[in-house]
Amino acid sequence: MTHELKAIVFDVFGTVVDWRGSIAADLGAWGARHGLVRDWAALADDWRARYQPQMERVRSGAIGWTVLDALHRQALDELLPLHGLQQLGEEERRYINRVWHRLNPWSDVREGLWRLKQRHVIGTLSNGNVALLVNMAKQAGLPWDVVFSAESFQAYKPLPETYLGAARMLDLAPDELMLCAAHNDDLAAARAQGLRTAFVARPTEYGPHQRKDLAPAQAWDVVAADFIELADRLGA
Amino acid sequence: MTHELKAIVFDVFGTVVDWRGSIAADLGAWGARHGLVRDWAALADDWRARYQPQMERVRSGAIGWTVLDALHRQALDELLPLHGLQQLGEEERRYINRVWHRLNPWSDVREGLWRLKQRHVIGTLSNGNVALLVNMAKQAGLPWDVVFSAESFQAYKPLPETYLGAARMLDLAPDELMLCAAHNDDLAAARAQGLRTAFVARPTEYGPHQRKDLAPAQAWDVVAADFIELADRLGA
Repeated sequence: MTHELKAIVFDVFGTVVDWRGSIAADLGAWGARHGLVRDWAALADDWRARYQPQMERVRSGAIGWTVLDALHRQALDELLPLHGLQQLGEEERRYINRVWHRLNPWSDVREGLWRLKQRHVIGTLSNGNVALLVNMAKQAGLPWDVVFSAESFQAYKPLPETYLGAARMLDLAPDELMLCAAHNDDLAAARAQGLRTAFVARPTEYGPHQRKDLAPAQAWDVVAADFIELADRLGA
Repeated sequence: MTHELKAIVFDVFGTVVDWRGSIAADLGAWGARHGLVRDWAALADDWRARYQPQMERVRSGAIGWTVLDALHRQALDELLPLHGLQQLGEEERRYINRVWHRLNPWSDVREGLWRLKQRHVIGTLSNGNVALLVNMAKQAGLPWDVVFSAESFQAYKPLPETYLGAARMLDLAPDELMLCAAHNDDLAAARAQGLRTAFVARPTEYGPHQRKDLAPAQAWDVVAADFIELADRLGA
């Protein structure tokens, strides 16, 4: 028997916010103020390329639990010399690292979330840490009812505990909860734990030459062009 | 050196919501529909009287981690025969137990929180479980930026891990975080961990004959009559 849908949790990086465009714009403006001209989108790409390997070290147990802000900072310290920025001091590095707290949503997100919020509990289910997600929501106007983070479970997606932990903390059966994501692998892991799934393509998440996640890889429960269509499809 | 205040977390039962009045009204209406006339405020008092002893069993390690919904249900099953309600079945008991998800805020709360939210991160720091707090916020219109629960830390207030855990998850120093509560003992425990403190008296939380927490027991950082005065005092 299928239960009624009660809550929707959202992947954040790429699905809700445009991390690559936001980082390029934020650091581009910061660089201009400091006389630093760099390819900030390329720096964003290099930064993001370290994301999965870093989390895999945590998931595998090679290192203990480490929040994403700290992983981002380790990667940044490695990257800066490769972009001719090794001269930056502690205060500047802290500012740059917090760019992940200042990411902007895709243009359909706020309207879609406000509509979905009228009918459902809406929340994050992100590998970002709680402070990052709360600061981002505050700045970007994202009206979450609840913020679930890998930090809440000390486990990074796609480990099962993240999806099941969100359902458990909401006191819901897995199929009363939906994951919305722009990434087929995240949805596959959620479906394997019994969650419902919604795919929203974000074909420029990785820039103009993106090759992956351009289309749904499985018959997800909902496939929508954006959060407004998602609200339409869910009757919100 | 004192840091700037960044975030305010709120005790919920008694401080934000009127649990006694809400339970009496909610179950009074439910009882009327079912032809059951009882002293529902007395039932609420009996229920709440079991709260600290139950949590103490968890805090002491006598029993393992147990969420408040489950503690409430155990207490309810003990109480019902004392109120001539032993005939109630599973569905009715579940409805009654969820009354804690349906509590109403004091009249100043929504306006005060919306004002405070403009300048600060606002959240819960409650012994209620996450589902209880999220459902309550949804129904009552409480605009939390973040929901911290004893469940988030698997520790009940006043254990230090709850106050320090909220600061850590927000990536704040303890004195960048304030606890607002109507209970002097909660504030004393928060202050012992370095948090700022705000006392708001709720002199009818326990009904017309309340004896405790009628006035601040220490020189808390802020003492306000209600959440609107708290917003005034914090410049929000």
